[in-house]
Amino acid sequence: MSGAIDALVTELARLPGIGRKTAQRLTYHLLQQPSAQLARLVEVLAEVRDRVAPCRECGNVTEEQPCAICRDLRRDPGLLCVVEEPSAIGAVERATEFRGRYHVLGGRLSPLDGMGPEALNLEGLVRRLEQGGVREVILATNPSMEGEVTATYVQQLVAGRGVRVTRLARGLPMGGDLEYVDGVTLAQALLARQEVPR
Amino acid sequence: MSGAIDALVTELARLPGIGRKTAQRLTYHLLQQPSAQLARLVEVLAEVRDRVAPCRECGNVTEEQPCAICRDLRRDPGLLCVVEEPSAIGAVERATEFRGRYHVLGGRLSPLDGMGPEALNLEGLVRRLEQGGVREVILATNPSMEGEVTATYVQQLVAGRGVRVTRLARGLPMGGDLEYVDGVTLAQALLARQEVPR
Repeated sequence: MSGAIDALVTELARLPGIGRKTAQRLTYHLLQQPSAQLARLVEVLAEVRDRVAPCRECGNVTEEQPCAICRDLRRDPGLLCVVEEPSAIGAVERATEFRGRYHVLGGRLSPLDGMGPEALNLEGLVRRLEQGGVREVILATNPSMEGEVTATYVQQLVAGRGVRVTRLARGLPMGGDLEYVDGVTLAQALLARQEVPR
Repeated sequence: MSGAIDALVTELARLPGIGRKTAQRLTYHLLQQPSAQLARLVEVLAEVRDRVAPCRECGNVTEEQPCAICRDLRRDPGLLCVVEEPSAIGAVERATEFRGRYHVLGGRLSPLDGMGPEALNLEGLVRRLEQGGVREVILATNPSMEGEVTATYVQQLVAGRGVRVTRLARGLPMGGDLEYVDGVTLAQALLARQEVPR
């Protein structure tokens, strides 16, 4: 295998969910395409590299500063949804009617992986809170162990600033069967059971 | 294919999650076993058929009347967890510290499948409520469209009897990533976001 092909396989294999076998298959697929298509892929990748940067306000990926959400004056700056990664913004935007703003931490606390608080965009969050005008911080970290630890850390950072702190509800996901829900989720759903309005 | 073999394939294919192909594979597997093993399977199936019946109190499957949970005096009779199927009792028992009692509806409302209220064990529920002593009914139907409709029906049946009605919390399941949570669940989790205690 040539050095270039091998290097491409290695790079593709770094992508999440792509193992070495899949990376090889993708590489051979790309090699069989007309060279114009490969050139186009190179071009769009280079454009992303050159044009996309974190929003200086919220940390979202953007081509313009600040990002479209931070520029949108119709969005409530008093409501701040704190997420781990920019991809979560897409998920919340697609699924909900949320009309506030976001703050991207750029990761999660994970001492075993060497991710401490200094690796997260927390200074930016504190700066936004100190600027005033934020009424509620919604903790929307992932429902994983590390996400919970990160949420607790952010909550302690926000506490005492007169800002309401909430987090996304935990419980049963829509669809499926009680029998197939994991035990931790089921136990939380029972503990956090809600009064049914009459 | 002989009539008996074909009939067994047909019966096995009625089981949930087992298609005709799998049923055929299971049948041929059974045919290759020593005949004692097949005899044993016949025996245990017959025992289940002869001995297991719905608990006359709660509708759980049981060999004794009433079932072990209804007989257990340490379990709170004031707390009634309403489930669709006996299998959900197992899930709640394994996952939680719930120490109340259950009521099995024996299905869910599904007009398209011809499942109306008369097909559910609702008379038994009303009888238990009328006997008194129930403080809270926990709606633990499945987090599906039909489960929601069923829960609403049961809630209306219970309303006005001075009994608290709650339901399992809806929200993000433990584990995973916001990005992979379905949109309905994410929207519910945002709407039902909870105040974080200081």
